[in-house]
Amino acid sequence: MKKQFITSIALVVAMTAVLFSNEQSSASDTRSIDESASPKYSLVIHGGAGTITRDRLDAETEASIRAKLTEALEAGQTILAGGGTSLDAIQASIMVMENSAHFNAGHGAVFTAQGRNEMDAAIMDGSDLNAGAITGVTRVKNPITLARAVMEKSRHVMFSGTGAEEFADNIGVEMVDPSYFYTERRWKSLQNFLESQKKQDTASIYEENPEFKFGTVGAVAIDQHGNIAAGTSTGGMTGKMFGRVGDVPIIGAGTYANNKSCGVSATGHGEFFIRATVAHSICALMEYGGLSLAEAANKIVMEQLVEMKGSGGIIAVDKDGNTALVFNSKGMYRGSVTNSEPLTTGIFDDE
Amino acid sequence: MKKQFITSIALVVAMTAVLFSNEQSSASDTRSIDESASPKYSLVIHGGAGTITRDRLDAETEASIRAKLTEALEAGQTILAGGGTSLDAIQASIMVMENSAHFNAGHGAVFTAQGRNEMDAAIMDGSDLNAGAITGVTRVKNPITLARAVMEKSRHVMFSGTGAEEFADNIGVEMVDPSYFYTERRWKSLQNFLESQKKQDTASIYEENPEFKFGTVGAVAIDQHGNIAAGTSTGGMTGKMFGRVGDVPIIGAGTYANNKSCGVSATGHGEFFIRATVAHSICALMEYGGLSLAEAANKIVMEQLVEMKGSGGIIAVDKDGNTALVFNSKGMYRGSVTNSEPLTTGIFDDE
Repeated sequence: MKKQFITSIALVVAMTAVLFSNEQSSASDTRSIDESASPKYSLVIHGGAGTITRDRLDAETEASIRAKLTEALEAGQTILAGGGTSLDAIQASIMVMENSAHFNAGHGAVFTAQGRNEMDAAIMDGSDLNAGAITGVTRVKNPITLARAVMEKSRHVMFSGTGAEEFADNIGVEMVDPSYFYTERRWKSLQNFLESQKKQDTASIYEENPEFKFGTVGAVAIDQHGNIAAGTSTGGMTGKMFGRVGDVPIIGAGTYANNKSCGVSATGHGEFFIRATVAHSICALMEYGGLSLAEAANKIVMEQLVEMKGSGGIIAVDKDGNTALVFNSKGMYRGSVTNSEPLTTGIFDDE
Repeated sequence: MKKQFITSIALVVAMTAVLFSNEQSSASDTRSIDESASPKYSLVIHGGAGTITRDRLDAETEASIRAKLTEALEAGQTILAGGGTSLDAIQASIMVMENSAHFNAGHGAVFTAQGRNEMDAAIMDGSDLNAGAITGVTRVKNPITLARAVMEKSRHVMFSGTGAEEFADNIGVEMVDPSYFYTERRWKSLQNFLESQKKQDTASIYEENPEFKFGTVGAVAIDQHGNIAAGTSTGGMTGKMFGRVGDVPIIGAGTYANNKSCGVSATGHGEFFIRATVAHSICALMEYGGLSLAEAANKIVMEQLVEMKGSGGIIAVDKDGNTALVFNSKGMYRGSVTNSEPLTTGIFDDE
């Protein structure tokens, strides 16, 4: 039942935590010894978690998704291998996914009940805990670029709705006509959703069709300078109402990064991810509790979230470059690459 | 320099944290032994932190504010002493402050740059980690009641803007005309702010006039059943633009509650409170790091936030009923009462 993809075997070195210390027992990557001479970097990405099974995905679509995940990883890896920053790398990876119709973010964003595309995004810099988040934007081509502009060019952390777009207009982020976010697949999905609403209540539609609920893209990286960054972008829930805000733009829930511990980007049933403060909890278990990344990620995703019935997963990178891609759902679009490990992509729970 | 008001003297019982255990070293309240027979409850409130000094507050205003803090505490205490829930108690306390013109929440909310009142609120139930949050509402008389309705009557955690008000209309929360939030004092404050903007940039106005930045009300309680609840409500920053969202509606930043550790409501320069994930960090230091409430609150407010230059404070109650009211600013409107300690209010840093 455990579906975890940890690149490193964690050795629990010390069970006695040294409180307050930034020196904690770290996971030991058994493969890192040979490659210790090469400059270290790690990059992980996700394109959403959910009921993704082989019988629901034809071979052509699967190949196309894997190609896009590969392209996203390569975009970030090129930057990291060249000595660039983790912020630039994750932004590049996320933009590739935002520009693809495969994922629920940017161009491929789902429609709200009113037939609009309302997107959220967040980014965090683990070196100084600076962060930027936006919610409910409708005209920003790449929401992750606006989240980054909020972080770097404003004194604030979070802007919502038309205010966020007013800031975007002022700051010179690329804007598009809302029709850019129209894709036939997502429009049909909304029509199916609205059709179902005539026959059953909204709650049971989401219950029976988890794919309406999910969809996010995200990336986390550590660069050669030891700086961690994390970012997440989403179109939210199909048929969402009431200006619902999920976990993506909530710093600490869907996105968190701290050089002292780790960076995390989450994807799943957002309400549970907010209530469990998923991203920050994983980092806090490392920093305050002395756990390894693998232990912390499993504790939150495979124990706490499973208990709460909160479906989804996370990707993470810790301060030593260890990576974790952990999910309790049927599948998660994902991929990773480091200085010492080849680029790999994954979709299903058995790979 | 340390301005802390801890009701209990913390004994560091064990520096060796038992990982994963909910049994942690707890702060020892030296006054709890005598009263151990009476049913235990604790309630703390705040009405905002900032540059609150004796020379800025005339005697009449001070007396009026202390009377209102007392009224808010009594409203919650009555419920707790009668065996009611911590959720009901904190809501009652917060509503008293929301209905007063003294505090930047509800009726006394500050004005945005556009001359509107846009309010945020959040509430969390420590017994099941359920939570509700709203941002940017303009017609809800008591925003804390809408946050609670989101928690209890929707499947979501957070709604923003007009969507939040559409939900409020549907659910039957008390609505008012936006003119209800007009107070002469706050209107003059906005005019002063706008006048200053003609002469200097916005950043330096906030720098020189910290009172434009601050203002929040909040309450945290543990009831006789051992359940912790926390809530926070605010009108945001005077002259705010771009739909800026502060820490108040961010679960884990301005508001957090968990029966395993503690409940926290924060007030201060919101951006820093989001970046430091203040409320959840204090609880995580207790649950994962084995710290007492006093140690955890000091670590975050007096060390981490001071380092980041994040001005403000927190109020908190832990699972054993210990209370903490800690701030690094000149003052914080505050008060506390427990089953064994008399009702007290405070404003300045030397009381």
